[in-house]
Amino acid sequence: MIIVMKPGAPEREVGAVLRQVETLGGRGHLSNGQKTAIIRVAGDDLRLDPSAFLALRGVERVIPVLHPFRLASREVQPKDTIVRVDGISIGGGTFTVMAGPCAVESLEQTLEAARRVKKAGAQLLRGGAYKPRTSPYSFQGLGPKGLEILSRAKAETGLAIVTEVMSAEDVSLVAEHADILQVGARNMQNFNLLDACGRQKRPVLLKRGLMSTVEELLLSAEYILSRGNRQVILCERGVRTFEKYTRNTLDISTVPVVKKLSHLPIIVDPSHAAGVRDYVASLALASVAVGADGMMVEVHPHPEKALCDGQESLSPDEFDRLMRDVRPIARAVGKRMAR
Amino acid sequence: MIIVMKPGAPEREVGAVLRQVETLGGRGHLSNGQKTAIIRVAGDDLRLDPSAFLALRGVERVIPVLHPFRLASREVQPKDTIVRVDGISIGGGTFTVMAGPCAVESLEQTLEAARRVKKAGAQLLRGGAYKPRTSPYSFQGLGPKGLEILSRAKAETGLAIVTEVMSAEDVSLVAEHADILQVGARNMQNFNLLDACGRQKRPVLLKRGLMSTVEELLLSAEYILSRGNRQVILCERGVRTFEKYTRNTLDISTVPVVKKLSHLPIIVDPSHAAGVRDYVASLALASVAVGADGMMVEVHPHPEKALCDGQESLSPDEFDRLMRDVRPIARAVGKRMAR
Amino acid sequence: MIIVMKPGAPEREVGAVLRQVETLGGRGHLSNGQKTAIIRVAGDDLRLDPSAFLALRGVERVIPVLHPFRLASREVQPKDTIVRVDGISIGGGTFTVMAGPCAVESLEQTLEAARRVKKAGAQLLRGGAYKPRTSPYSFQGLGPKGLEILSRAKAETGLAIVTEVMSAEDVSLVAEHADILQVGARNMQNFNLLDACGRQKRPVLLKRGLMSTVEELLLSAEYILSRGNRQVILCERGVRTFEKYTRNTLDISTVPVVKKLSHLPIIVDPSHAAGVRDYVASLALASVAVGADGMMVEVHPHPEKALCDGQESLSPDEFDRLMRDVRPIARAVGKRMAR
Amino acid sequence: MIIVMKPGAPEREVGAVLRQVETLGGRGHLSNGQKTAIIRVAGDDLRLDPSAFLALRGVERVIPVLHPFRLASREVQPKDTIVRVDGISIGGGTFTVMAGPCAVESLEQTLEAARRVKKAGAQLLRGGAYKPRTSPYSFQGLGPKGLEILSRAKAETGLAIVTEVMSAEDVSLVAEHADILQVGARNMQNFNLLDACGRQKRPVLLKRGLMSTVEELLLSAEYILSRGNRQVILCERGVRTFEKYTRNTLDISTVPVVKKLSHLPIIVDPSHAAGVRDYVASLALASVAVGADGMMVEVHPHPEKALCDGQESLSPDEFDRLMRDVRPIARAVGKRMAR
Repeated sequence: MIIVMKPGAPEREVGAVLRQVETLGGRGHLSNGQKTAIIRVAGDDLRLDPSAFLALRGVERVIPVLHPFRLASREVQPKDTIVRVDGISIGGGTFTVMAGPCAVESLEQTLEAARRVKKAGAQLLRGGAYKPRTSPYSFQGLGPKGLEILSRAKAETGLAIVTEVMSAEDVSLVAEHADILQVGARNMQNFNLLDACGRQKRPVLLKRGLMSTVEELLLSAEYILSRGNRQVILCERGVRTFEKYTRNTLDISTVPVVKKLSHLPIIVDPSHAAGVRDYVASLALASVAVGADGMMVEVHPHPEKALCDGQESLSPDEFDRLMRDVRPIARAVGKRMAR
Repeated sequence: MIIVMKPGAPEREVGAVLRQVETLGGRGHLSNGQKTAIIRVAGDDLRLDPSAFLALRGVERVIPVLHPFRLASREVQPKDTIVRVDGISIGGGTFTVMAGPCAVESLEQTLEAARRVKKAGAQLLRGGAYKPRTSPYSFQGLGPKGLEILSRAKAETGLAIVTEVMSAEDVSLVAEHADILQVGARNMQNFNLLDACGRQKRPVLLKRGLMSTVEELLLSAEYILSRGNRQVILCERGVRTFEKYTRNTLDISTVPVVKKLSHLPIIVDPSHAAGVRDYVASLALASVAVGADGMMVEVHPHPEKALCDGQESLSPDEFDRLMRDVRPIARAVGKRMAR
Repeated sequence: MIIVMKPGAPEREVGAVLRQVETLGGRGHLSNGQKTAIIRVAGDDLRLDPSAFLALRGVERVIPVLHPFRLASREVQPKDTIVRVDGISIGGGTFTVMAGPCAVESLEQTLEAARRVKKAGAQLLRGGAYKPRTSPYSFQGLGPKGLEILSRAKAETGLAIVTEVMSAEDVSLVAEHADILQVGARNMQNFNLLDACGRQKRPVLLKRGLMSTVEELLLSAEYILSRGNRQVILCERGVRTFEKYTRNTLDISTVPVVKKLSHLPIIVDPSHAAGVRDYVASLALASVAVGADGMMVEVHPHPEKALCDGQESLSPDEFDRLMRDVRPIARAVGKRMAR
Repeated sequence: MIIVMKPGAPEREVGAVLRQVETLGGRGHLSNGQKTAIIRVAGDDLRLDPSAFLALRGVERVIPVLHPFRLASREVQPKDTIVRVDGISIGGGTFTVMAGPCAVESLEQTLEAARRVKKAGAQLLRGGAYKPRTSPYSFQGLGPKGLEILSRAKAETGLAIVTEVMSAEDVSLVAEHADILQVGARNMQNFNLLDACGRQKRPVLLKRGLMSTVEELLLSAEYILSRGNRQVILCERGVRTFEKYTRNTLDISTVPVVKKLSHLPIIVDPSHAAGVRDYVASLALASVAVGADGMMVEVHPHPEKALCDGQESLSPDEFDRLMRDVRPIARAVGKRMAR
């Protein structure tokens, strides 16, 4: 950590900062410039909160030098984490495909989707039983009944299940039915939920918040990791910007940024990013080329009848085509298709 | 709702849309233009999900005509909601002041803050017992012990208490100690929490998310209102933008926008918006002038020792000065200072 | 400037950075931490481009310590700049009002607007002869004929004129008719135009770009100041965000931020920020309270007939009311109304 | 265009809107709903400015139905535009590569860069003689001398030249040396410059502004097209968001969005988007996969000595590797490498 004092800050203020550094367990090294004093703080950046210094008189800026996450960082673990679930690998050179409807609507719809995405080459079935919806008047998901349907779909097709959990109370129930627990974008900083997900055994798919930096995404992963669960998969699904032709703006750079900073696998959800069916396939191909470890795609047997997100769901035929197009690009970037 | 078809969409597609409208309980009126057909949908916009039409072949855009919130809207309730708690009014022509430390750190710190903000003219004491923190390594609040301290501060000073609740499970415990339950910016779309807050009796202070639209804020309020709790106060606390000199960008326009669209009271939190002590007072004055129903300000007896947000906390002396400056502006815009 | 090396960067790379510092005329002081070396660079931050170091092997980050602007900074000139034009002061404790139509449409419209805003208490008439429009098919302004009309309005009412210049070639012509040259938001980083404005004598009103940080605004002012023209007025007019109920998001914090960092006067344009007439007055009052040196407001004699921005233009009667409401707030914050 | 009236707007106001529609040359069809009247306007959306209606009493919203650009739209020209310059094709199934240094610094540097990018397979040499810089104290380019150097590099290597023009006055001089004129992101809405570029013969590379929507990008292209120059290439180079690990956020979705809406070719600049060398190659591969017609990459013979943007410039060896990786992906998506 580096503390930059205001130009001309008197010795008394510099001294107070140095004392605060010591009080909090760090060691400060003072370097006096022509106008501004700079204090370099040795010790544990993670435990030293910048705001403990920012409030002191005469302090201009506090600049953390180390990344604020540790367990998620490549410095601590240089080797890629490979999440293994039900015989499937996520990370470490494979490209894993999760596909299925936005919401579990009925047994028929779910089974039909599951059979088709399985046949096209997906490894996991996605589908929400609990749906976080902006409006209280929108379809909110089937809840426990939806979880049962997912279990039936797994029993029949052998696909592993990834599904969203919205609340700490629901974690154990969802974990009975899901192979991977999904934390949605709106809950990325629901710290109680992260805590609960960190204290159980299932891998967690953590989606980046609409409004969250990659640093914050990695800090939310750190919550889960620090509670004992090391099986975390990150997911880029678009951020909010001023652009209007797409629902969100897919921040494709997140993939190489995460690959550099962290050992955790990262996948891309092109469906929520685009919000428009016509763009989903192109964004999926870009995700393969950029180096993602997989993708999560909305596929509905009858998009025009979907209870949510029909406009961005691929039909099974469109998904077949996408999977055919994905393979040569995966090969070109040296990735194995999962299974 | 207006459905705009793609230029040249064939009759068959237009027909399918009209049938979908009827299936979902609406009535569609077709208007054929030179190139594009437009369908005007009569019926209940709230229950008709745009995505139910967007997924249909030939549909270009779906434009909601009515606001997606109802209970929160001025159309449904033209008269200002006045939230009354412990003899204090929020809304309806008064300017109410909530002040206190970011976090409850100790009995002494809390009492000292409470006495000073009371003396300066605040009506409510703010202070977090549960703290949502970006990093798992930051101070997370005293929890239940912090709630006890707040109750002691209330007993001694008579100030009403507003404090954050982070999770549905904690709602009843927090409600025992708090006069107003605060839902923080990161939880604005934690729908389980909104649901729980809507099913209890205490007023709720709902903070706008860092990157949430005002429409989404009003829809989150609608969750609470539709569960039976009509005592909701909105709070603008800055949104995330590209600007770096302030922690967030105070979206001061939210106040007149909410006043036009909704009957709910709205206050401003200039401290979290600025993130820098030097700007808090100016933003507070702007909030009075723009027509806010109150403000929530961070005040710490010793900002340089604060466990969080010290850099944006006012000292008690600075808060005294702010309160002196607020009064003539409140008078100029025709607001009574609360109490 | 502080250069932070990557953890474990070898001595050789550190040495190369130190040599680069010297080559470029700075002096580097090395401080070795446990893992990371830090180099503090003494000398002229303005001339040392961070990118000259960022490209070197082993460099993690380069952190400027000084602000990148100098002539615009309060460190160089602690005293407020007061721009004086035609007997009017802008800055230094007065509140100056510029008002008039978006575009000069005709002599009648301009004269009618001028008379009314003069009567209500404005000091300057605004109105565009050159209009930067997003679409090539929109009304682009009357050009030189519009300038003539403005001169006639000045002759008749005595109001000083502020009007936009869009191109370096037009600077001298516009300067013949205008008392203040306006550089619009879309041209804030049109460096050739800034250069030309800096080499002539008229004061310049520099509007913040939709997409520009306050630092960039001050650097654009620095272009003008460094060419010899010290008469620069800054203008906050809203930035682009994700919020949809307003055209732009008024970044009201810009006022106290600029007041702290710079001696230049700053005014607010609530009309372009809001984009909706209903919100203009509230935002104007907030601007007075926050400490702005003035405001620029769109007023049209017949908003419903305006060729541009009619939806955000006040009618003369609405402007009368606004001016009545502004005065007590100006008084409350210790500002004199200009004239 | 659809005009939505406020709920309960009286007949008189509806009538006034209908009259305004006629006055401006459109035809209005009224449709009365339960609460709100809607007017559908037939006629030329391009000439009817929404603000001409927004200012009328009783109008709630004005919704354009047609895209506001015409010459740039696929509706008007379904077939891809192929820009041909110096034997090179841009658009229509080829992948074209433009590479070279950020700035022309010297003859040696430029020639060395030119030889290496030519050998690696680039078709065009990029390099700025005029450099728009945020700070007046940064290197501003060699100007006319830089143009001469580019011409020498062309003469020696046969590479076509793409270089930036910052001002309408410079267009004819730059056009003497450049095969393609580049309009930079900061000038995307410098309408005088667009106008001048539209009135000369060279193809124009139009970069998207940092915070411009795709609609605005296409409207800026429309300026050039409507002045007579149909040879326009669009370029996505990242937009400004809240994310801090990259300089800008590459909005990769722009490519399929533009492909759907427009016939103009679109390329990607991964260097300016990333701002960090480590991410450039991944983003370049994503650009190929997403369907871009080419890319523009910063390559410097000695990035550590570059006068600007060294931190994001590839070394010639890195560029060689990138070109090897690009080819199989281009093949996988059915694109020919140019030449």
